[in-house]
Amino acid sequence: MDILNINMAEHGGRTDDDNGGMNMIDFSANVSPFGTPDGVRQALENAARDAHIYPDPSCRRLRGAISDAYGIPAEWILCGNGASDLIWRIALASSRKSFYRGRAALIVAPTFSEYENALKACGRVNIKRYNLNLDADFYIRSDFLNWITGDVDLIFLCQPNNPTGMPVRMDLARRILNRCRETGTRLIWDECFLDFMDSPENYTLLDALSSEPNLIILRAFTKFYGMAGARLGYAFCSDENYLNNLIGPPWSVSRLAQEAGIAALRDLNYTRNLRDYISRERSRLYRGLKLLNFRVIPGTANFLLFQSPVYLDQFLYQNGIFIRNCGNFKNLNAFWYRIAVRTEQENNRLLDALREAVGTLAENRI
Amino acid sequence: MDILNINMAEHGGRTDDDNGGMNMIDFSANVSPFGTPDGVRQALENAARDAHIYPDPSCRRLRGAISDAYGIPAEWILCGNGASDLIWRIALASSRKSFYRGRAALIVAPTFSEYENALKACGRVNIKRYNLNLDADFYIRSDFLNWITGDVDLIFLCQPNNPTGMPVRMDLARRILNRCRETGTRLIWDECFLDFMDSPENYTLLDALSSEPNLIILRAFTKFYGMAGARLGYAFCSDENYLNNLIGPPWSVSRLAQEAGIAALRDLNYTRNLRDYISRERSRLYRGLKLLNFRVIPGTANFLLFQSPVYLDQFLYQNGIFIRNCGNFKNLNAFWYRIAVRTEQENNRLLDALREAVGTLAENRI
Repeated sequence: MDILNINMAEHGGRTDDDNGGMNMIDFSANVSPFGTPDGVRQALENAARDAHIYPDPSCRRLRGAISDAYGIPAEWILCGNGASDLIWRIALASSRKSFYRGRAALIVAPTFSEYENALKACGRVNIKRYNLNLDADFYIRSDFLNWITGDVDLIFLCQPNNPTGMPVRMDLARRILNRCRETGTRLIWDECFLDFMDSPENYTLLDALSSEPNLIILRAFTKFYGMAGARLGYAFCSDENYLNNLIGPPWSVSRLAQEAGIAALRDLNYTRNLRDYISRERSRLYRGLKLLNFRVIPGTANFLLFQSPVYLDQFLYQNGIFIRNCGNFKNLNAFWYRIAVRTEQENNRLLDALREAVGTLAENRI
Repeated sequence: MDILNINMAEHGGRTDDDNGGMNMIDFSANVSPFGTPDGVRQALENAARDAHIYPDPSCRRLRGAISDAYGIPAEWILCGNGASDLIWRIALASSRKSFYRGRAALIVAPTFSEYENALKACGRVNIKRYNLNLDADFYIRSDFLNWITGDVDLIFLCQPNNPTGMPVRMDLARRILNRCRETGTRLIWDECFLDFMDSPENYTLLDALSSEPNLIILRAFTKFYGMAGARLGYAFCSDENYLNNLIGPPWSVSRLAQEAGIAALRDLNYTRNLRDYISRERSRLYRGLKLLNFRVIPGTANFLLFQSPVYLDQFLYQNGIFIRNCGNFKNLNAFWYRIAVRTEQENNRLLDALREAVGTLAENRI
């Protein structure tokens, strides 16, 4: 196998085609280690029978189910072909004349690269980047407030952040919201990994929706419900007029994804069990990485970010393991790695391989 | 049932939610009357098992299968979440600074409304509209060439056109291509309904791809392979750099759609049988509509456009039939209707209902 041919995709997540037939474990994609829940898979299979019927462009039944699950009016919900679809719609809407008057978008670094990709693709050239500080474990500090100036019309924040796994502290989040109200700035608050946190209810801004029309919350089924291949995300916003402006192709959410989403919301035990499992394994992985003397960021999601003194990609690949090299994240470099929290057995295999890698590579260090 | 509550969607295609529990026949969506072929449905069901794995953003296996089926290099193929996704990417790319310098986009009327929707959403304000002439059965005439001026950077043409079903004559198509080469205009040539024509090979521009880098051909699995609910379309273009610029959310084509597309291309008999069936039923429907003294456009796709002296929507709805009122198409009005070609039995039911409608409504004409 030619190691030089490893396709370094921009994002994590490997496809069948990447593994050259080997039985690889993929730690590069932040998806639930248990795959798709049975009820969701069954819903996809059932929906396949109606695959010839156009999906409902306005996702009425799905929005009704989300509305019931979260107590949010259906009119405040917009569904998309994964959260990334919504990110692009937000970027596009912000670039249209009515919204965009040469103003700036504010993001942090490192963070999910689609925010910046979408903004740039839609012609937003003025992008301000707040560098998260390694010394503070990449927590956002209160000086971030000074960056929210009258020329900033849009902020993207990920709660908890990808790839660091670190949340915005909620006292600061409230002050950011207040500041956004003063400056007329929209806050895009991405909760796609929130469900993996130990106490998501303590880190959400759901309760601020009704009083803050400038707040847009993003959510996804992709990761928690193992639907990365089926694609489904949604946005909450109490400014219905703004949601209606987030236009794009009319049938972007497939019929299959809509049915899968409705099924996913039915199983409450799944949520609790998965969260508990991830919590236990995250702690174990964290301790394991620390024992190997890596610098580990104490992330709160279903992945961990750590820094290694040696390159690990190739050694692990040869041992059947994909991890995410974070060299293409701004404000990180190629010695940083992101690993998903997977099953106990898989996590053990990763820790064993890392132990071996550190020993072997440290000897032959180049 | 409250007739006033019929949701008049912008496009055709009704969802379960629209029918109030009745067993309706949907003539408003231009999808194959036989639904999803077995092999495609099976592929969707199989792919549901891997729904937790991210789709390949570059759709390599699917592009390989399309490449094999059409003899087009895989590098000239871009897949999308339905053809509408590609239309929006084209509109967005055209609006970015590098492509857009105050130039005009040219479309015809009536045609598929997503061309104009996407252009406008992406900030393209200068849209020229060539009105197709009813006296010429909505054929494009050669004076269209005069509209292709140096300020036009983009033309959308649908072959055959939706909702008229009329093709661009190929001698004119070649002259349009030549003219586009002179003016540096990109021709977006939408062949989404081409497969339903009796001799698609005589109406495609596939053979011009290699010599005309300004030509972009759109295709879809949606209609012919009954995949409207799963979403899959693709574009052909020999200008690889241009295709690479048609960016959008990275995982827009779901894993399920990719697998379904690969399966769809395997069954050659399906194509021949469906085309023959549609041809026979289209002719029969055409004659039936003529006998009822409607003005019928001699369309060549899997739908027919006709003009009625009376409103038909409500009467047919009460009789369990949806048809597409074309009142929201530019250059048509609410007396124009589009009906899909469905199964022999369903088409008979439609003709019977229309016969009854004409009799009943003519008596009570308001």
